[in-house]
Amino acid sequence: MRKQLSTRILTAIMTTDHAYAHCDLPCGVYDPAQARLEAESVKACMEKYHASDDPEFKTRAIAIKEARSHLVKEHLWVLWTDYFKPPHFEKYPQLNDLFNQATKLAGAGGTKGTVDVVVADQLLGKDR
Amino acid sequence: MRKQLSTRILTAIMTTDHAYAHCDLPCGVYDPAQARLEAESVKACMEKYHASDDPEFKTRAIAIKEARSHLVKEHLWVLWTDYFKPPHFEKYPQLNDLFNQATKLAGAGGTKGTVDVVVADQLLGKDR
Amino acid sequence: MRKQLSTRILTAIMTTDHAYAHCDLPCGVYDPAQARLEAESVKACMEKYHASDDPEFKTRAIAIKEARSHLVKEHLWVLWTDYFKPPHFEKYPQLNDLFNQATKLAGAGGTKGTVDVVVADQLLGKDR
Amino acid sequence: MRKQLSTRILTAIMTTDHAYAHCDLPCGVYDPAQARLEAESVKACMEKYHASDDPEFKTRAIAIKEARSHLVKEHLWVLWTDYFKPPHFEKYPQLNDLFNQATKLAGAGGTKGTVDVVVADQLLGKDR
Amino acid sequence: MRKQLSTRILTAIMTTDHAYAHCDLPCGVYDPAQARLEAESVKACMEKYHASDDPEFKTRAIAIKEARSHLVKEHLWVLWTDYFKPPHFEKYPQLNDLFNQATKLAGAGGTKGTVDVVVADQLLGKDR
Amino acid sequence: MRKQLSTRILTAIMTTDHAYAHCDLPCGVYDPAQARLEAESVKACMEKYHASDDPEFKTRAIAIKEARSHLVKEHLWVLWTDYFKPPHFEKYPQLNDLFNQATKLAGAGGTKGTVDVVVADQLLGKDR
Repeated sequence: MRKQLSTRILTAIMTTDHAYAHCDLPCGVYDPAQARLEAESVKACMEKYHASDDPEFKTRAIAIKEARSHLVKEHLWVLWTDYFKPPHFEKYPQLNDLFNQATKLAGAGGTKGTVDVVVADQLLGKDR
Repeated sequence: MRKQLSTRILTAIMTTDHAYAHCDLPCGVYDPAQARLEAESVKACMEKYHASDDPEFKTRAIAIKEARSHLVKEHLWVLWTDYFKPPHFEKYPQLNDLFNQATKLAGAGGTKGTVDVVVADQLLGKDR
Repeated sequence: MRKQLSTRILTAIMTTDHAYAHCDLPCGVYDPAQARLEAESVKACMEKYHASDDPEFKTRAIAIKEARSHLVKEHLWVLWTDYFKPPHFEKYPQLNDLFNQATKLAGAGGTKGTVDVVVADQLLGKDR
Repeated sequence: MRKQLSTRILTAIMTTDHAYAHCDLPCGVYDPAQARLEAESVKACMEKYHASDDPEFKTRAIAIKEARSHLVKEHLWVLWTDYFKPPHFEKYPQLNDLFNQATKLAGAGGTKGTVDVVVADQLLGKDR
Repeated sequence: MRKQLSTRILTAIMTTDHAYAHCDLPCGVYDPAQARLEAESVKACMEKYHASDDPEFKTRAIAIKEARSHLVKEHLWVLWTDYFKPPHFEKYPQLNDLFNQATKLAGAGGTKGTVDVVVADQLLGKDR
Repeated sequence: MRKQLSTRILTAIMTTDHAYAHCDLPCGVYDPAQARLEAESVKACMEKYHASDDPEFKTRAIAIKEARSHLVKEHLWVLWTDYFKPPHFEKYPQLNDLFNQATKLAGAGGTKGTVDVVVADQLLGKDR
């Protein structure tokens, strides 16, 4: 269910012609790479978690995945607030939903709260 | 113009029956006090900035206002993503706009980018 | 023993007429809500830890409890140093002890080092 | 006046046989070097501030001094809460006052709020 | 002089077949985009600094440029330590010098200590 | 093997006549104590990890060790970039290797990725 809703969310967000407000001067440097890189790191942490039998390593993997998931949220929030202007929201009325779902997918109900690689793929906009 | 749009934004957000998702366990502790306190601090920093003739103090006031404005954004983002669920957004269709405008008001186009106390009052949901 | 000593510590601290120095401009915004909210979050993390059988979730609960306990310490330290002035300490000679015990209760010998909800209640000034 | 009060505060704190609780495991590593190094950095930032005519450099010096002053506070708070136990406070009844005054000296009423090198020397326990 | 030395440093670093160790699990996600984006932000902050007459804005631009320059250093350090292995250093004996010069270029002797756009271009590996 | 390579690395780094660039003003305060203290904390966290049977405590020990190992890397990176100048590198051609190996020893392939006290001793420049 959640899967259906979230499929292609990040794909949609990351393949449109927008980008990430980089700092709050604002400096005007925009690039979707930051959120996507963190999301890829989240997925890689999950895969390494499953491939390991070392409880210490698994503990580290969970903690680092938590931090990287949070960075996904941060980069998406910055984009939603700082990059997109009223004309964008008028032109793409689904933007609010996409960002709300994507940040939820990177939160406790998403990649923070699970080691299920499927959820990381949903965050990355890939269905399985 | 912006003033009209933003009037009562925070009032609306902060007086409804919702609250702030406190951490991403999630722990379930919710309270609007955190965002409001930071917004009050932003306003106080602006007032102290204007009341001072000391260039060192004014530099410090700007830097601290920047950090506190950012915390307003953070607390509001957490609420928007972590506390509100689909039923809230259905019941209050204006929620997305309110949060987008409020976080913008705490950003570079708002309290980060100005020492105008009127903008801080807008963030606090007070008109003048 | 520790229980007897610490009973009503936070109650005492949080119900007097003082408040929290919010930033170090200082901005003059004071409110006890910040420390109390974090302490409530600590307790909620412990309760969720006990209610779960998922080892990943339990790892996350411990890490988040650690961070939130630290924020309790931070908010109390700021109050002790920045809000209270010599006249307060003269009028309330027990203030130093109260804050020292309360910050210890939020540290490794307190809520950082245990998942015992009783200790969180002591931090919150509630006896059992 | 403040000068008289604070003279030898840090000297007293930093020359007794105690040390700094290093982390909140607690790991048991104690050393007064951390607070002292940050205090020396605060003083050096002030001296470089005065020696420069470059407004950009002076802005940077104030911001970095602010951050370093805050680290002095942090290291002293950790020591006060985490290293010292009840027997220390019984043996040295002035400990609470010393730490409260020293952290105030590193705050807005001290090295954060001024570029006066005399105040940094007071924080370092040196009179002039 | 410095210019000659540093020309093409980042170009060299960022166009070889290596990449950035993303976290210290390590997760294995590598991409040079992070350092380059921050360096572009540094340059943009400098340009906005020069284009403005607002002292408050200029103060903000300096502070944000400082933070972004620091992120360039961080990303480069991570790469130098975590991505490159002994075989890389044997194959590219100039790697140590390149990274040392590039991180210096992003530090106090480089983009942190100046608003000269030429230095940002050197960091970005562009000559003028 | 790694042991042989890394033996006396930190000893070499920490017993020469250099020191740590403390901040990026730069303030000019240099002291090797910061990296060494964090490395000692890393080792103490490992020892406490082994001495405990409490899974919660062991989780905390791993997380805190991770953070402290990272601080070792940070302090060493600052020294390598900010303190050492070209003449140092000419005089001590092994400096690059020493720092690269030492920061690797404090990373995922070193004290972050293990609870083996021998590795902490290698980081501290002590052979066994």
